[in-house]
Amino acid sequence: MQLQLQTWMEVEAYLRSDRGIILPIGSTEQHGPTGLIGTDAICAEVIAKGVGEAAEALVAPTIAVGMAQHHLGFAGSMTLRPSTLIAVLRDLVGSLARHGFDRFYFVNGHGGNIATVTAAFSEIYAERSLLAAGNAPPIKCRLRNWWQNEAVRQLSREFYGDAEGAHATPSEVAVTQFAYPDAIKSAPLDPPVAPWGEFADAADYRRNFPDGRIGSNPGLASPEAGRRLYEAAVGALTKDYLDWVAAE
Amino acid sequence: MQLQLQTWMEVEAYLRSDRGIILPIGSTEQHGPTGLIGTDAICAEVIAKGVGEAAEALVAPTIAVGMAQHHLGFAGSMTLRPSTLIAVLRDLVGSLARHGFDRFYFVNGHGGNIATVTAAFSEIYAERSLLAAGNAPPIKCRLRNWWQNEAVRQLSREFYGDAEGAHATPSEVAVTQFAYPDAIKSAPLDPPVAPWGEFADAADYRRNFPDGRIGSNPGLASPEAGRRLYEAAVGALTKDYLDWVAAE
Amino acid sequence: MQLQLQTWMEVEAYLRSDRGIILPIGSTEQHGPTGLIGTDAICAEVIAKGVGEAAEALVAPTIAVGMAQHHLGFAGSMTLRPSTLIAVLRDLVGSLARHGFDRFYFVNGHGGNIATVTAAFSEIYAERSLLAAGNAPPIKCRLRNWWQNEAVRQLSREFYGDAEGAHATPSEVAVTQFAYPDAIKSAPLDPPVAPWGEFADAADYRRNFPDGRIGSNPGLASPEAGRRLYEAAVGALTKDYLDWVAAE
Amino acid sequence: MQLQLQTWMEVEAYLRSDRGIILPIGSTEQHGPTGLIGTDAICAEVIAKGVGEAAEALVAPTIAVGMAQHHLGFAGSMTLRPSTLIAVLRDLVGSLARHGFDRFYFVNGHGGNIATVTAAFSEIYAERSLLAAGNAPPIKCRLRNWWQNEAVRQLSREFYGDAEGAHATPSEVAVTQFAYPDAIKSAPLDPPVAPWGEFADAADYRRNFPDGRIGSNPGLASPEAGRRLYEAAVGALTKDYLDWVAAE
Amino acid sequence: MQLQLQTWMEVEAYLRSDRGIILPIGSTEQHGPTGLIGTDAICAEVIAKGVGEAAEALVAPTIAVGMAQHHLGFAGSMTLRPSTLIAVLRDLVGSLARHGFDRFYFVNGHGGNIATVTAAFSEIYAERSLLAAGNAPPIKCRLRNWWQNEAVRQLSREFYGDAEGAHATPSEVAVTQFAYPDAIKSAPLDPPVAPWGEFADAADYRRNFPDGRIGSNPGLASPEAGRRLYEAAVGALTKDYLDWVAAE
Amino acid sequence: MQLQLQTWMEVEAYLRSDRGIILPIGSTEQHGPTGLIGTDAICAEVIAKGVGEAAEALVAPTIAVGMAQHHLGFAGSMTLRPSTLIAVLRDLVGSLARHGFDRFYFVNGHGGNIATVTAAFSEIYAERSLLAAGNAPPIKCRLRNWWQNEAVRQLSREFYGDAEGAHATPSEVAVTQFAYPDAIKSAPLDPPVAPWGEFADAADYRRNFPDGRIGSNPGLASPEAGRRLYEAAVGALTKDYLDWVAAE
Repeated sequence: MQLQLQTWMEVEAYLRSDRGIILPIGSTEQHGPTGLIGTDAICAEVIAKGVGEAAEALVAPTIAVGMAQHHLGFAGSMTLRPSTLIAVLRDLVGSLARHGFDRFYFVNGHGGNIATVTAAFSEIYAERSLLAAGNAPPIKCRLRNWWQNEAVRQLSREFYGDAEGAHATPSEVAVTQFAYPDAIKSAPLDPPVAPWGEFADAADYRRNFPDGRIGSNPGLASPEAGRRLYEAAVGALTKDYLDWVAAE
Repeated sequence: MQLQLQTWMEVEAYLRSDRGIILPIGSTEQHGPTGLIGTDAICAEVIAKGVGEAAEALVAPTIAVGMAQHHLGFAGSMTLRPSTLIAVLRDLVGSLARHGFDRFYFVNGHGGNIATVTAAFSEIYAERSLLAAGNAPPIKCRLRNWWQNEAVRQLSREFYGDAEGAHATPSEVAVTQFAYPDAIKSAPLDPPVAPWGEFADAADYRRNFPDGRIGSNPGLASPEAGRRLYEAAVGALTKDYLDWVAAE
Repeated sequence: MQLQLQTWMEVEAYLRSDRGIILPIGSTEQHGPTGLIGTDAICAEVIAKGVGEAAEALVAPTIAVGMAQHHLGFAGSMTLRPSTLIAVLRDLVGSLARHGFDRFYFVNGHGGNIATVTAAFSEIYAERSLLAAGNAPPIKCRLRNWWQNEAVRQLSREFYGDAEGAHATPSEVAVTQFAYPDAIKSAPLDPPVAPWGEFADAADYRRNFPDGRIGSNPGLASPEAGRRLYEAAVGALTKDYLDWVAAE
Repeated sequence: MQLQLQTWMEVEAYLRSDRGIILPIGSTEQHGPTGLIGTDAICAEVIAKGVGEAAEALVAPTIAVGMAQHHLGFAGSMTLRPSTLIAVLRDLVGSLARHGFDRFYFVNGHGGNIATVTAAFSEIYAERSLLAAGNAPPIKCRLRNWWQNEAVRQLSREFYGDAEGAHATPSEVAVTQFAYPDAIKSAPLDPPVAPWGEFADAADYRRNFPDGRIGSNPGLASPEAGRRLYEAAVGALTKDYLDWVAAE
Repeated sequence: MQLQLQTWMEVEAYLRSDRGIILPIGSTEQHGPTGLIGTDAICAEVIAKGVGEAAEALVAPTIAVGMAQHHLGFAGSMTLRPSTLIAVLRDLVGSLARHGFDRFYFVNGHGGNIATVTAAFSEIYAERSLLAAGNAPPIKCRLRNWWQNEAVRQLSREFYGDAEGAHATPSEVAVTQFAYPDAIKSAPLDPPVAPWGEFADAADYRRNFPDGRIGSNPGLASPEAGRRLYEAAVGALTKDYLDWVAAE
Repeated sequence: MQLQLQTWMEVEAYLRSDRGIILPIGSTEQHGPTGLIGTDAICAEVIAKGVGEAAEALVAPTIAVGMAQHHLGFAGSMTLRPSTLIAVLRDLVGSLARHGFDRFYFVNGHGGNIATVTAAFSEIYAERSLLAAGNAPPIKCRLRNWWQNEAVRQLSREFYGDAEGAHATPSEVAVTQFAYPDAIKSAPLDPPVAPWGEFADAADYRRNFPDGRIGSNPGLASPEAGRRLYEAAVGALTKDYLDWVAAE
């Protein structure tokens, strides 16, 4: 149930029984020689839509550009400053809370978003916490990374072991191959498994990771593995979402 | 050529010959009893993709939530504050300019975005204009509303005449019906042609336009008309884009 | 009735029967070889004062510096960033709304202000629209450019035809000549009618319009024409203002 | 020499020999039962113009609304938040510095502006100070209150003694009477000399100073005293300005 | 080597051989019935000073108030909004980078700071990453929580097992008892081990954790255990700091 | 009574009878060849603690970094931009006001903070003043510089006469020697009494005051004089604080 494909009257009807909404958030950034720039947004979007269908929950439009300053050394990467992303999330949650939504479940496709999105939740809560007489109805936000649950982790380990790596992973590339089979890319990966390490700004990142990957061999990805990872993620997040909105 | 479906190496190759990029921007807001909440984002996205294909130009991910404060009286509508949207556009253009893009062509699906996007362009330019020694390479931004060109206007007049109206128009609804034929909605429209008028904030809007429409009868929309409007818009904007990037 | 020349007790008395206020907004920017840097502020101010007298309405102090980043390539031009101007307008309207004013009528002297002022209105409205329980009394803002009404347009056409142009127009220069006859300047205008075109930042503007004018021949201006333009503008805007504050 | 009445070519010529500019800053706020709301802006403006003529220096348009949050309990008072005023001053100084101005001399009419304007100077300087390689040409800002010099203080003491007070003073009212003799107001002042005290926000101010005055008896003001105060202020500030721009 | 106890000449001498600096960051918030409000700031400060001595590194003044919106339901708790804390860290790092420091090692005492501090690092990096020609010398920031290393974790487990909990832990209380033995508090803890759970804003937190603790029994704390935890933390962080500044 | 050394229950008990709190604010900046970088923070902190003990009032943690952009030309100096410091003070006061504190007494150690802190008070008040229906309980903020009272001024004159100067004064250095006798520094002071003058940004400051001092001879400082200055300051401020919180 995509919000974009509803009428306002349908949303009004939904709110009579439900207060939760799913918000996919990704990133637009390099994913190595063969990964799509939209990898993180695509993964978040398709999995969030899957969760939305399974949970009969509304899914907001995808936040396609996240916090990716460290990838700006590679063409096509885009970022919001953390302060900008915080303002965006404050406005999005504020808009939806205005209508009565009170559970905001973010399905995240990008590790680089975690800190800023979490800070944004605190920014949103702080407005309420600074008021002693908090008679605003309580709202709650949750961030879930699609790959951080036992079901997905187990598949990733089984499929790729140590070649999973940390950026431009075969798992995320596989999910995009499943979602966009016509956009599967191939290119030499040298070395096959990319180096590990840390990074600070974009220049530092590019110096340490010349082709953009960290610790991964995305050459191992396949659409079929992508399908299984997708299904595992949808299953795990659907349960998590339903448990969460049912609590208190 | 969607940016999201490229690798960074493909974008690097593109930049050797091209410097322009197309950015669809829409809105997430009520469109009357039968219009989709995502109408403006959908129209901007599908038309921008059409232009991208025709012009062999890259298309950035859609900015799905725009400036729609006046629609917040209707469930599901979302807005960015103008100051937030300005910060977003500054970061998006700044990211892409970092790679060498210098022509930013926004395909807009929402009248309410025009002022803020135009102000954002000035905010971006102002940073450069305040520096006397402007040795940064010049960048240019352009906003085009998909419905404001002779080809589309002529079709709208021909199809709907005075029932086109100003919000939740049959033209935009038709384009979404063409794009998402499975999401065609029906509901009573009473009166068939909605009233005209002005509005200030969300409460004022809802008072004046009880079902969300302004001056329109979207009941006249059809997917086939949507296809023709889509083609007219793509044709007009493709020419405009190509002329623009070719100039100087 | 200039606000600056009232006491607070007089304003309090005014508010017992009236809720509208007129706010002139101009710009401080080059206007070609013969136009005054204060042209836009002067036009807005004198016409707003005229409207205030005719409509017996209060006139706030003139916002003399507006959004004029594109003119910074010419000495003496000043700008506020759009984000700054939005904050200014939010504070000004907020201050006056605190006292009970609820109709804010901006008489504008500068095309470059339109987008930012309109965005500022949305920023102001958004604060209210994001609150579901909008028990704040409704406020409304309107922007009117003094030259965009039939009476003024007709005179401009009659006086200057195609030499009116778009920046440093003979019409606006004429109004300043009427207002400040001691400050009439003369200088060579070469070519007599300036070129047309588009612009982005200040460097781009100066490249395209070497002496600052766009499409105009301000050499045709005269104080007498200025008087007639002034009277036409005051007449048109007074009627518009009175109709507006009388509605609902 | 008002900036508003120059052309850009005249400003360019001025900059060949001069780098200083005078910026009047006032406030729009209640000044007791008989003082004009524009008192502070009027005083700053007329005195700054006097200094400009005497010193043959350019005078920028008046910043008419300053920091006056404490006066918002009285109708017609307007304020900028300190953070807004800081942004305004940053943009104004930045615009003028772009052209080569490097001495910014603010003639202030309102005690409530002092802290914020001083903070704004630091905000402007901080941008430069945070850069180690400061190859930007040095700029300097100075704030001078028109009433804080020996010449004016002596006259105020002579004319009004203890009845000068701290807000809505007979001295400032006298200057406005000299400047706008047609706008001289009269109203009962009870008690003749207002109480002294401190204040925090607007409610606190109004509680302590029911008619808006602090410690003053503006009933003693006269246009003739205003003329002498004006002349004393212009004399003192002209010397101060000329010494300042001549130094180093 | 506390920065506060050096002269600028001593810092200049330090910078000839060293580029790293340690910045303690804590929080000012309730820590249950017996924990000090300054617990997190105290732990961060004393451990950072210990690391500074062991590593012969400069230690900046403690950032005593962090992001603690969720604790505002308990008297004495203070917070910075995430957006404010990001601005603070940007200014602090910017000031020090101006002098040539390029390794910023934050010793953190509060879990609630992690997301915002990490986002602040990205905000700082983003300014550099958005510039293609990054000729600014590279800077790096690192955040280390004093309790997240094997040495401390082992002691906590050994001392407190499951009663360590997540807020107002016996470990952190013990460190403050070691640091401020005169300020050891006692109060009934009922139940001895506090409940576990999640929280959103301050009202939600107080509802779930009535006396402020989460999962902990701080009644088990002792100054002697505090001394051992302090020494373990200093040892682990000193090694981590020295390895980090030595790398590349 | 340091806030950091209380539990939340103790603060809750305090608030049953008291509503005032003392907030020390200093700076981290060069203080000449022999003055500590932490001079201003140290003076504010020790004197505030002394006042807190004498007045039995709570003392918040020290704001150690203030507005010191002009000192950035000397190694180790740190600054917050004025806009950042305003945001910090807004959040600190907002947090404490949430608990019922309503008198915020800032003990200041740095002249450079005065304007920004005063502007911050206005920013805080403005939020309340802009609301007509101010039913928030009134709060008041006061800033007191520890050296600006008759008791301290008299001692400074007696001890140092004209060699007191304006920055890196023997008085403030003496207080730090009293507070940190192990950190007394010695270095050649040439000339013994530093020059006087004005300054703008950091480069300007360093040009005019090569070793950082202004008008002072801190070589005259002694711990014993520091003790007497400390006692005088504590005495004067304690009386001022108690009178203030007792009023109305």
